[in-house]
Amino acid sequence: MKIRQIQNVMQQKKVELFLIMNLSEDKKDPNMRYFTGIMPEFGIMAIPKNGAGVLYVPLFEAERMKKMSTAKIKPINKKKLLEQIKHDFKAKKIGLNYDYVAINDFKRLKKALKAKYFDFSKVICDLRIRKNKDEIKIIKKSCLIASKILDKCIKQFGSFKTEGKVKEFLLNEAKLRGCELAFDTIVASGNGAAQPHYSGNKRLTKGFCVIDFGVRYKGYCSDITRTVYIGNPSDDEIQTYDLVLETQKKCAEMIKEKVKTAKVYEFAQKQLGKYFTHGLGHGIGVQIHELPNLSPKSKERFEKGMIFTIEPGYYDSKKGIGIRIEDDYLINEKGEIEEITKVDKKLLIIK
Amino acid sequence: MKIRQIQNVMQQKKVELFLIMNLSEDKKDPNMRYFTGIMPEFGIMAIPKNGAGVLYVPLFEAERMKKMSTAKIKPINKKKLLEQIKHDFKAKKIGLNYDYVAINDFKRLKKALKAKYFDFSKVICDLRIRKNKDEIKIIKKSCLIASKILDKCIKQFGSFKTEGKVKEFLLNEAKLRGCELAFDTIVASGNGAAQPHYSGNKRLTKGFCVIDFGVRYKGYCSDITRTVYIGNPSDDEIQTYDLVLETQKKCAEMIKEKVKTAKVYEFAQKQLGKYFTHGLGHGIGVQIHELPNLSPKSKERFEKGMIFTIEPGYYDSKKGIGIRIEDDYLINEKGEIEEITKVDKKLLIIK
Repeated sequence: MKIRQIQNVMQQKKVELFLIMNLSEDKKDPNMRYFTGIMPEFGIMAIPKNGAGVLYVPLFEAERMKKMSTAKIKPINKKKLLEQIKHDFKAKKIGLNYDYVAINDFKRLKKALKAKYFDFSKVICDLRIRKNKDEIKIIKKSCLIASKILDKCIKQFGSFKTEGKVKEFLLNEAKLRGCELAFDTIVASGNGAAQPHYSGNKRLTKGFCVIDFGVRYKGYCSDITRTVYIGNPSDDEIQTYDLVLETQKKCAEMIKEKVKTAKVYEFAQKQLGKYFTHGLGHGIGVQIHELPNLSPKSKERFEKGMIFTIEPGYYDSKKGIGIRIEDDYLINEKGEIEEITKVDKKLLIIK
Repeated sequence: MKIRQIQNVMQQKKVELFLIMNLSEDKKDPNMRYFTGIMPEFGIMAIPKNGAGVLYVPLFEAERMKKMSTAKIKPINKKKLLEQIKHDFKAKKIGLNYDYVAINDFKRLKKALKAKYFDFSKVICDLRIRKNKDEIKIIKKSCLIASKILDKCIKQFGSFKTEGKVKEFLLNEAKLRGCELAFDTIVASGNGAAQPHYSGNKRLTKGFCVIDFGVRYKGYCSDITRTVYIGNPSDDEIQTYDLVLETQKKCAEMIKEKVKTAKVYEFAQKQLGKYFTHGLGHGIGVQIHELPNLSPKSKERFEKGMIFTIEPGYYDSKKGIGIRIEDDYLINEKGEIEEITKVDKKLLIIK
């Protein structure tokens, strides 16, 4: 379906071939996963304007890739790859994602494959920001799996001794369900909660504890955060938690088709003030952060098929407290917002 | 020390500022780790031709980064970053690593920071291919840690039931020693061993079992492979193992300063024939694969300070058997080769 969608654009733009390139373990284009379902260390996906796409991978990887990918795999000697693509497609107009091709790689490509080149970065963004029916189904499942796991984790939270043990539990539960992690789980207790991207494995300490977790299911991410309290919260702390939760609810109520993402951010900013130092939310898909951006300078409006997080937070590094509540949402066929993660939001207090 | 080394080159080339950019979770330049010790999701390291380098990171990440990095950290609003760099350095000649800057990011950069730009990719390769004294010390330690862990793993190999359990053991041992994994551990038993980059968690099955493992210690990688046998090997299988082991030994004996890397590859190719479908070795450092390349088309010669793997392998996908033996080596001050990993190489048979 995604291949057909991009081929429609190629035909409009008279582009004969679209190339997506993973050139080494640290030069991978996330669109490779979007179109092939996998992320080989080295591989080039070639999509012609008609017919099936071909994923070229090294000889010794071909068998493994065939089992993993939905794409047609062609094993190839790395050194002869560009020559082979030239021979297989004879394309004179080639689309590339200029957001993910390095200057030197582009030079090498132009030398090997003489053609007119077109930047497809906007085309791809435009395609990916709205999820198709298949994608929505998969992401909903991804959100459901993550919800079940996080729910289970929180219910037995009192039994964990360290941040590391909570992470271990979440990882094992994800594996049991055949999923990877969508990103490195964050479990931030005590002072750590005040840092939105805290990483550590220390003993669980008193105060708010932020748990940010998601799975990757069939290539697609989910992303949920819950905050629990270890010890006895003060009235102030309970009020702050309730303010964050209320902000999330009110933001969700504001959102439907055509509303500006920046407007929702502004509202959250007003609610939470200077302790709101993090973005309000982001799209999810084959990447954990994609469009739309729920940020002050964003120019996007919500549209049908968009899937994104709403994650207001309160981070006071002086007092060393942090709270974040994050769920995933879809703008459905009717243009209405739908919450697609399901974990209790009431503040759990562990004494 | 590394900063001073690059500043020497900058002064020769009259380049005033060198920028290393991590622009998102999937656009990270491995040289960021080389110069700062860390890999932030977003950050720009600016190295002027004199004085200290500055690592610009988002406000909410600054505290965490200060604890992790050796670089001077400057917190900054992402949107104002390029403006700030312009103000802080007023550079007219800027070096960039064209191997890691995407076409569109380069366009944006040139618009914001009007200057003459120079490709520093070769400068950086040249710097990184020879390790300095500090780096050698760290990598030796990384190799020692990985050796101890793998040794312990192999000694109790009979107690593991699945490939996944072996990987879990190795990961936990690495964590206990304060290390990350250098790459996803490979444990490939039965048919899986015939695929150099096999991934799976199945029950350990009869035949050769390849275990490829390394840790990242203070940012630097180690990389070791051992092959054990589950069941009763045939005489043929034992001979093949011995041939691979002999190949590794003979390759190491050939290597000293000034020898061509390609020559050593050719020798291994002759020894192992068509079942040698993988490269012979690669440099290690802040990346798990870096220069030199022990491959047929490589033009490098071994030099003092190079650290690399020698990993001959035998992969017969028809018979479903695979063997690989991999160790890490240094060309020392005397120009001689030194093996810096220490794990027994005798074929361990688990009945």
